[in-house]
Amino acid sequence: MPYISETRFRVRYAETDQMGMVYYANYLIWMEVGRTDFCRQCGFTYRDLEREEKAYLTVAEATCRYHAPARYDDEIVIETEMSRAKNRLVEFSYRIKSGATLLAEGRTLHVVIGPDGKPRSMPQRYLELLRSKL
Amino acid sequence: MPYISETRFRVRYAETDQMGMVYYANYLIWMEVGRTDFCRQCGFTYRDLEREEKAYLTVAEATCRYHAPARYDDEIVIETEMSRAKNRLVEFSYRIKSGATLLAEGRTLHVVIGPDGKPRSMPQRYLELLRSKL
Amino acid sequence: MPYISETRFRVRYAETDQMGMVYYANYLIWMEVGRTDFCRQCGFTYRDLEREEKAYLTVAEATCRYHAPARYDDEIVIETEMSRAKNRLVEFSYRIKSGATLLAEGRTLHVVIGPDGKPRSMPQRYLELLRSKL
Amino acid sequence: MPYISETRFRVRYAETDQMGMVYYANYLIWMEVGRTDFCRQCGFTYRDLEREEKAYLTVAEATCRYHAPARYDDEIVIETEMSRAKNRLVEFSYRIKSGATLLAEGRTLHVVIGPDGKPRSMPQRYLELLRSKL
Repeated sequence: MPYISETRFRVRYAETDQMGMVYYANYLIWMEVGRTDFCRQCGFTYRDLEREEKAYLTVAEATCRYHAPARYDDEIVIETEMSRAKNRLVEFSYRIKSGATLLAEGRTLHVVIGPDGKPRSMPQRYLELLRSKL
Repeated sequence: MPYISETRFRVRYAETDQMGMVYYANYLIWMEVGRTDFCRQCGFTYRDLEREEKAYLTVAEATCRYHAPARYDDEIVIETEMSRAKNRLVEFSYRIKSGATLLAEGRTLHVVIGPDGKPRSMPQRYLELLRSKL
Repeated sequence: MPYISETRFRVRYAETDQMGMVYYANYLIWMEVGRTDFCRQCGFTYRDLEREEKAYLTVAEATCRYHAPARYDDEIVIETEMSRAKNRLVEFSYRIKSGATLLAEGRTLHVVIGPDGKPRSMPQRYLELLRSKL
Repeated sequence: MPYISETRFRVRYAETDQMGMVYYANYLIWMEVGRTDFCRQCGFTYRDLEREEKAYLTVAEATCRYHAPARYDDEIVIETEMSRAKNRLVEFSYRIKSGATLLAEGRTLHVVIGPDGKPRSMPQRYLELLRSKL
């Protein structure tokens, strides 16, 4: 069974739009918040990956399917898991919920790059930590 | 040949992140700017669709593939076209460019809903205007 | 002594800009998160004020002084207090910190409006709850 | 008479909130768009100031007074002028309008810093270009 991290927060007013629900691009921000927590629960911070290793997980692809609207002040749970962890490529999957309701499902594919923007390998120590949660 | 609308603007500083490039969720906002222009060039405003008809194009699915980074102050061109225009479902496709460089490609699938959040048909006049551009 | 509510969260990657620090407009979003918590700790939710009473705290003025940069993944504390609670006008003050460092100080002035956008009085029950924290 | 630059764009759907108007923090983003245009009309780009001179205009203070709501698809005009241009400190003022309606007035105070985050002087060539518009 893959490891699933859980992130909880409430919807901000800023995240709503005039339809009275959360604007669709914000779900991608929430996925990022889920990824940050996932890394922390793997035993490292994404911040350190950037600062110490100069390795950056740039996004190559992002997808989101929206099932039900999130509304202001709803308590959101992001369930994040890693679906792939290769040398130069990492993929996360997300389930975004409020209570028992599945609001959205998403997926982001990341390529590891260096400060020059060129692809590089994931530093070994970090790759092992990520793989331990597959 | 399907109709393609073009939208131009410069990258805002607010849209960058500490990687020095545009944060990935902002491309979904840019797609929305492209859709708004597409509608205007079809002969109506999305604003009027909401105000006069109480019909809302909620997003059911969004995808983006990122090819090259956009940077602050770059001049961005969004090419928007409609890939499907059905009674209750509309799909847009986008090519996001800067000069000759293709930065990203995206797609959004929309369901038409009423003020109650339930699916409804696209008002006939608007559907015909959209279909004229298929 | 006025009541001070505390809100804690970590800086999102989305909130940074290419200067490597949090983009200045995001502090106003953080103030909103602080206000929401302040209301909850007064014994009501701002959501209910809108939903049940059709009273909206629109912003008439906002100010922020920036002392030190916030960075990705920093743990932020928002200290919110109410500086004024009149019939038609409410003012909040904020101190935004990370650990012992004061990052920013802000203030927002709000006018109570109805669904028609016209000024109205704050519903009595809510006004009393807010005033109990002055 | 001080020079006033004009910037025009339409309100994005993403910028609205569930009150049906533009969320208040977005006005600070619009001010940044105004500043970028102001610099361009002074004969330089803020991008080059950062890239070539490693000089950054960090925000020390921001204020906005909101007079009337902006709504989705409104055409916005940002009038930007420089109110101060000192060696280490620059101040911009903004009037945000839609048609003849004044929506908001703002002011941002900036300190010039280097890549180390420490205050430094504005590069002479840029300072002169800015001062020519006072």
